[in-house]
Amino acid sequence: MANFGGHAIPGSFFLFYGFWLTVKHILHHYWRTNQPKGRQVKPPFLKKMEYFEGGLQIFASFVGMMVEQFVVDGPHAHLYDASTQSWVKLMNWQHCTMYLFFGISGIALVISTSSKLVPVGVDRLALSLALFVEGFLFYYHVHSRPPLDAHIHSLLLVAVFGGSASTMLEVFMRDNIILELLGACLFILQGSWFYQIGFVLYPLRGPQWDLEQHANIMFVTMCFCWHLAVALLLVASTSCVVWFTVNRFGKKGRDIEIGMRKTLSESNSQKALLEESEEE
Amino acid sequence: MANFGGHAIPGSFFLFYGFWLTVKHILHHYWRTNQPKGRQVKPPFLKKMEYFEGGLQIFASFVGMMVEQFVVDGPHAHLYDASTQSWVKLMNWQHCTMYLFFGISGIALVISTSSKLVPVGVDRLALSLALFVEGFLFYYHVHSRPPLDAHIHSLLLVAVFGGSASTMLEVFMRDNIILELLGACLFILQGSWFYQIGFVLYPLRGPQWDLEQHANIMFVTMCFCWHLAVALLLVASTSCVVWFTVNRFGKKGRDIEIGMRKTLSESNSQKALLEESEEE
Amino acid sequence: MANFGGHAIPGSFFLFYGFWLTVKHILHHYWRTNQPKGRQVKPPFLKKMEYFEGGLQIFASFVGMMVEQFVVDGPHAHLYDASTQSWVKLMNWQHCTMYLFFGISGIALVISTSSKLVPVGVDRLALSLALFVEGFLFYYHVHSRPPLDAHIHSLLLVAVFGGSASTMLEVFMRDNIILELLGACLFILQGSWFYQIGFVLYPLRGPQWDLEQHANIMFVTMCFCWHLAVALLLVASTSCVVWFTVNRFGKKGRDIEIGMRKTLSESNSQKALLEESEEE
Amino acid sequence: MANFGGHAIPGSFFLFYGFWLTVKHILHHYWRTNQPKGRQVKPPFLKKMEYFEGGLQIFASFVGMMVEQFVVDGPHAHLYDASTQSWVKLMNWQHCTMYLFFGISGIALVISTSSKLVPVGVDRLALSLALFVEGFLFYYHVHSRPPLDAHIHSLLLVAVFGGSASTMLEVFMRDNIILELLGACLFILQGSWFYQIGFVLYPLRGPQWDLEQHANIMFVTMCFCWHLAVALLLVASTSCVVWFTVNRFGKKGRDIEIGMRKTLSESNSQKALLEESEEE
Repeated sequence: MANFGGHAIPGSFFLFYGFWLTVKHILHHYWRTNQPKGRQVKPPFLKKMEYFEGGLQIFASFVGMMVEQFVVDGPHAHLYDASTQSWVKLMNWQHCTMYLFFGISGIALVISTSSKLVPVGVDRLALSLALFVEGFLFYYHVHSRPPLDAHIHSLLLVAVFGGSASTMLEVFMRDNIILELLGACLFILQGSWFYQIGFVLYPLRGPQWDLEQHANIMFVTMCFCWHLAVALLLVASTSCVVWFTVNRFGKKGRDIEIGMRKTLSESNSQKALLEESEEE
Repeated sequence: MANFGGHAIPGSFFLFYGFWLTVKHILHHYWRTNQPKGRQVKPPFLKKMEYFEGGLQIFASFVGMMVEQFVVDGPHAHLYDASTQSWVKLMNWQHCTMYLFFGISGIALVISTSSKLVPVGVDRLALSLALFVEGFLFYYHVHSRPPLDAHIHSLLLVAVFGGSASTMLEVFMRDNIILELLGACLFILQGSWFYQIGFVLYPLRGPQWDLEQHANIMFVTMCFCWHLAVALLLVASTSCVVWFTVNRFGKKGRDIEIGMRKTLSESNSQKALLEESEEE
Repeated sequence: MANFGGHAIPGSFFLFYGFWLTVKHILHHYWRTNQPKGRQVKPPFLKKMEYFEGGLQIFASFVGMMVEQFVVDGPHAHLYDASTQSWVKLMNWQHCTMYLFFGISGIALVISTSSKLVPVGVDRLALSLALFVEGFLFYYHVHSRPPLDAHIHSLLLVAVFGGSASTMLEVFMRDNIILELLGACLFILQGSWFYQIGFVLYPLRGPQWDLEQHANIMFVTMCFCWHLAVALLLVASTSCVVWFTVNRFGKKGRDIEIGMRKTLSESNSQKALLEESEEE
Repeated sequence: MANFGGHAIPGSFFLFYGFWLTVKHILHHYWRTNQPKGRQVKPPFLKKMEYFEGGLQIFASFVGMMVEQFVVDGPHAHLYDASTQSWVKLMNWQHCTMYLFFGISGIALVISTSSKLVPVGVDRLALSLALFVEGFLFYYHVHSRPPLDAHIHSLLLVAVFGGSASTMLEVFMRDNIILELLGACLFILQGSWFYQIGFVLYPLRGPQWDLEQHANIMFVTMCFCWHLAVALLLVASTSCVVWFTVNRFGKKGRDIEIGMRKTLSESNSQKALLEESEEE
């Protein structure tokens, strides 16, 4: 999807996902710090958030794959054209592959939230692999393009592989809030950099960028650092807002939560309580 | 062994080994989660599996080395031909070197299973080194080949070095089921990718692949990700099947195990029990 | 700032910062080893040192950014010159970006010292990112220069990325004195190497260096190792001096500290004591 | 020292050091496993071994530096020749720099053995840095040589940087016997590879090797793996011999040790006992 929209759509998703992760992890951190020690059960509202997150990942990946396949100039599920002896629309197939792994990550999240048999950390492993595959395909994607185009995509790889490494670390170091927020920050960075790629390669107005000029490459490198600074700022301020909002409505919050539990059907609520008491 | 069979044989071995590791680790994990805490003795059936695994590794490596040396066009244990002042069949010698290290890994597994004096983790270190040596030799193997040939072999290195790194981590993080299954998954990936290399470079039917065409390289890169997805699926489904099978026959299983112990000669069985009681 | 002064100023800052970190970490280590176990409160004098450190970082970064922007031949806050269709003084903007991240690191240090809500290790993460950004920008900075110039700057990257990695490790391994002193040592190395770059590229007296000669590159590589040896010696001797000074005035030291607490206004002192007793 | 002897001397040292480390670590491991839990004092004989090791490192490094400087065609402590405007014998100076860091490592070992104030792990950090500097200088050393020469030296780097990484890990993971033996194994590999380099580049008898031939490079790569296999075998067999020897003379050994303590002067022995009782 070599146009501005083709970069804005994934960019928006990654931006949204980064903010979502920030909010989720801060809520989880708030819960952890306010629980008595030794009682580290995952709260019900977090489970609901993870079901929603996983479901959305699966849904968005499915839609993404369908769109890539069945747009007007898409491959329509044909991989090899025997008549011309050539592959059909490999770019669309590559994007489908990326979506596939994010879909797998969503499935892993839903299953690991719903079942206690799944070992803790499988969801992070799947997310890390999804980012690895994204970076892996982009790495060979970039080959033989004009310098600025290649450079701006290879900067994206810093965010993608950084995110993959930090998410992989989360498999082994659970509940480390710094690592979790770093991962969220790298998602926001990735999202905003997708927009930047769109603005540079397919400018909405104004002249085209000179893809060969060295000064442009220098500017873009520096601009990546500014995006990182903004991403750090966004994560920090979002975290503060969420923390103090939750803290202010602390007592109310607990009431609401109790209310939420009550609105659940009686059997569900009892099951949840039973599960909690078992885990204690 | 530059033909389809030469890639299918190691591929089959790695596929089988990946499934074997999956089953073994899931059985061990099931045993761990069903034991009372603090009683982390390795069960007798696992010891038997490890003896079998080590023995098979030693046997297969030995056969592999013999075949590489004494096939019709092999080096027949000659390394340097003084008459022509050249090395004899270096490719076969390289394959022998790879088999040698898998043999060493098998020996390390047998010894570390049989003796308590061997520090825990030596078997994983030896396996990690075997994979490292395989990747190391492949890395210089690939030099000065046509682009597609070089690329498809360098993708193999991702699975090989990934497996080496994850197995090395297991030395320090014992009994982490995610790490163990990731290692198994990378073995399956390696095995299926050996088949893919065979299909691409020595197609059984149909036309030859164009080894210079960029689109082929793009397709092969993407195909590697599909293999990874399939490997993940295979590990996940095998794990589920094994877990639920063991769980269903849980009580029976314990009976069978007791039965298996009884079928052992009286002295052996007593020795095993003594060992267990010592370890407790 | 392509002159000797432009390398001496950051060099002096990094040298000073390296020594500062050495002294701070040794004082903290002395405090830790002389506390009864389980009482690992950060002492008040350390908090003051961290406020000073953070404040200085913020101040120096701000001054640095202002100077880079508003020197006579600076960009004066103009980024793009529409008339000539070119970027304005990108080098100055790059230096500003580096200063910006050290400023962010200072802010993170002040906030994490003042508030208990900020997760432990955020200051180290910010410092690690500041070093990463510095190295990242230098990496692309070096492109297409004469060999010796490129080489001497790429050696700097060893110190910068080494420092970034060791500081990142500190996020996860708190209070490891070896890691802390290694980080300090790499700052001193970086500082002294900035001076070396200044001496080589802009010699104050004597002839210019031949930037193409291979022997010069060999010498500079070796010289980097000598700087490392000197940095190790400086950290070791500073640590010894600080440790034995503090130890000799041990009892006096405790009195002084008590005195320092008393000189604080009554309310502050009581608050601090209350905080300590809460944490115990 | 571009001749066979110049590679055999460091090779012999590294081989000896690898065996020494194997013996030392196995003795330490034997002591650890035979002590009651919670009593992890370093035994007196190990302290003596470490004093000897450190002293030898310092002595050998000093001798090495003197020889490199004052051999007939050495630089005689002159670094820059103003008359010809060129550096004097940079190769000798580089070797001196390597020796210097091994000397620093020896000093760190002696000091950290003698004083309890030095944080645990400083000796390993210094050894890791010594290996890093060796590899760092070799890396730029190799530049612009014939292919086989460059390749055989770059294979050495695998052993050197591998040893540096594994020794660095030991700083953080103390008393891990696998890591310690891996480090020893990499020293043996390095030593035997120095000999191999000598045999290939300066053959004692027979024809010169063709430094451009690809088959030679392939053979050398494979040969490196054989050296690794032999190094593993040597470490394993040395460990077995040491372990069973110590075990057989177990009771006698304890008597000998008590005897050794008694032969120490009364005051020393009492001091040692006092130290032990303090640590318990």
